[in-house]
Amino acid sequence: VPARIVTLTSDFGLKDPYVAEMKAAILSICPSVVTVDVTHLVEKFNVRAGAFMLASAAPYFPAGTIHVAVVDPGVGTQRRPIIIETESSFFVGPDNGLPILAAEAQGIKRMWHIESRRFMLPHISSTFHGRDIFAPAAAHLANGEAPEEFGPQIADVVKPEFTKVTREKDVLTGEVLYVDDFGNIITNIHAKEIAVFREGRVQVELPNQAPQQMKVSRTYAAAKPQEPLAVIGSHSYLEIALNQGNAAAKFLAKAGDKITLSRT
Amino acid sequence: VPARIVTLTSDFGLKDPYVAEMKAAILSICPSVVTVDVTHLVEKFNVRAGAFMLASAAPYFPAGTIHVAVVDPGVGTQRRPIIIETESSFFVGPDNGLPILAAEAQGIKRMWHIESRRFMLPHISSTFHGRDIFAPAAAHLANGEAPEEFGPQIADVVKPEFTKVTREKDVLTGEVLYVDDFGNIITNIHAKEIAVFREGRVQVELPNQAPQQMKVSRTYAAAKPQEPLAVIGSHSYLEIALNQGNAAAKFLAKAGDKITLSRT
Amino acid sequence: VPARIVTLTSDFGLKDPYVAEMKAAILSICPSVVTVDVTHLVEKFNVRAGAFMLASAAPYFPAGTIHVAVVDPGVGTQRRPIIIETESSFFVGPDNGLPILAAEAQGIKRMWHIESRRFMLPHISSTFHGRDIFAPAAAHLANGEAPEEFGPQIADVVKPEFTKVTREKDVLTGEVLYVDDFGNIITNIHAKEIAVFREGRVQVELPNQAPQQMKVSRTYAAAKPQEPLAVIGSHSYLEIALNQGNAAAKFLAKAGDKITLSRT
Repeated sequence: VPARIVTLTSDFGLKDPYVAEMKAAILSICPSVVTVDVTHLVEKFNVRAGAFMLASAAPYFPAGTIHVAVVDPGVGTQRRPIIIETESSFFVGPDNGLPILAAEAQGIKRMWHIESRRFMLPHISSTFHGRDIFAPAAAHLANGEAPEEFGPQIADVVKPEFTKVTREKDVLTGEVLYVDDFGNIITNIHAKEIAVFREGRVQVELPNQAPQQMKVSRTYAAAKPQEPLAVIGSHSYLEIALNQGNAAAKFLAKAGDKITLSRT
Repeated sequence: VPARIVTLTSDFGLKDPYVAEMKAAILSICPSVVTVDVTHLVEKFNVRAGAFMLASAAPYFPAGTIHVAVVDPGVGTQRRPIIIETESSFFVGPDNGLPILAAEAQGIKRMWHIESRRFMLPHISSTFHGRDIFAPAAAHLANGEAPEEFGPQIADVVKPEFTKVTREKDVLTGEVLYVDDFGNIITNIHAKEIAVFREGRVQVELPNQAPQQMKVSRTYAAAKPQEPLAVIGSHSYLEIALNQGNAAAKFLAKAGDKITLSRT
Repeated sequence: VPARIVTLTSDFGLKDPYVAEMKAAILSICPSVVTVDVTHLVEKFNVRAGAFMLASAAPYFPAGTIHVAVVDPGVGTQRRPIIIETESSFFVGPDNGLPILAAEAQGIKRMWHIESRRFMLPHISSTFHGRDIFAPAAAHLANGEAPEEFGPQIADVVKPEFTKVTREKDVLTGEVLYVDDFGNIITNIHAKEIAVFREGRVQVELPNQAPQQMKVSRTYAAAKPQEPLAVIGSHSYLEIALNQGNAAAKFLAKAGDKITLSRT
């Protein structure tokens, strides 16, 4: 039997020992787990950004992976700790919408409210449930504990709102979901929706910027260095990029910005 | 037998290949080791900060874990490489105080000066003992080598000084130990010492700031967003925090600052 | 049989889920692999810097290690995905020079152009071959697939240019290869070439700086705090450093700068 994988997604940053404490809690309970960091640089308290990042990575992990995701401004309050079982994985974390985008893409089967103290650390702080509740729950799942042992099954969980793309004739309006470390401006506009613009040119409007005309292309290198282009990114969403440059810095774009695409 | 865990704590940063070189040295000697990074963002050359971070994480690791900690401004000089055996773990690193806080909390049993070349890399640089001496020592310990094989037992090691909390009537004076990535101001004042203020309000004084009155509460979310509060953090020490905000940025606080608590 | 190690080197940064997606692809194909991050903070698109960092770390890994290195401004274009087999390891990545410095140090045996779709992810994006081609290739190599299964053997690959050190009488002229996170200025001047200056003093010239006289010493601590010194670093190359300080910040040095050494 291959070792179970537990992934970790958080807004904890990289400086503090908090992520190590979660891994310590996991390995104390299930020593054979392989942990993989998805990211710990989710913008602090930004549940939607974390949801997007987890949903990007989750499809590439093997069946049976257990995803722990903790962006948790409500830690210690009445918000519930939950387990979501999908057709291929488990998600563990606070009930604030963080895992839903990833979980729905896999098909949600059942959900539970974690209540049993038996699967938590002996001392539960009110400020760090990642270490005291979520990491231990993931490790116990990795040990083969059935999710129904953790608490009552639940029917409703918090779902984050994501803006839908709208189309009027050949004008598409969407939203910037995320700016990556290269400065690529990743939108919520799927490859299927821009078939009309493919291999041609497109006019792009971002807030407080003059409209930009640019090539629609398959690769960053299809544009000249520092030239903008529209490209289908590796998760099949439209990105605005500069070849070997930082598009978000040039266009002052950020997550949440409105973006409009039209014919040139 | 579960794989041995080797943790790594350093001020090496995240850009350079140095941490990978330590892991390479470890895995070359003991391929079954599981490595866990505690942090590599200890403030450069700040042994006390590293001691605090290691002491925060160490209690959560299983018995038998080997902790390698390298904040080592004296690398290549006469400062000794040492092994500390505690009731539950080993600590490996330079004799400059770094592991003492964590080791004393576990109960120190015996200590050794690493002298045997047999447990070092064949070529020993004078600038990177983390790779050439400490990582190999940890890996040989993970392989089951007895610590007495590494060199002579020693009785005294360097201990860092930490300020004690003082109390005059209902006024507590302590020190900021650490500012975490959220901007939480973590002090050396233990939960036991502030029982008198619990669930009430407290006046907090930090350098060059007007006294602040704030709630003492269990969770960050007990305050309004951006409102300051005093909270018992996940390691049982008092923190000054802003709900969903950065308290250290607001109050210009940093490690080493004096902090005074009194009744409102 | 010990688990195979796959190392990862990239310019992806630490924020995005891209590295996790590569690890997910690897563990889906070969669950027993141990992954080690060399660095993901190569300067963006800087193939030479990545080549240097990989060449620093690779010698410390055990025989059989598979190194995946992806700094890939030409992703999706005609640049070839390649495998290099050396006397002790495999290197997988784009044919742009990145692995050559490390591979030549180990002795290159054979090289292949990766063409077989059988060893790639089912859907291949044109912007993220790290996940879709290179990580899967490494995992299949870890599974024991023979490199000749991946595609045709090739004879020539792209090689990056590195400046050679020149000597005129007792004046050495070299180049800054890299500035590390401590601010140490690492040059391409090897320990063997500066024997003439050893244990004495040396005059150092960097661009736009007055000539500096400094000690040549074995350890950082041989200078007073914040005092400059010339030291043989842990990879046997000359570094200009400040004891407990940041030499690159003081001398405004950066990779690519010319550096001249002469007798005082």
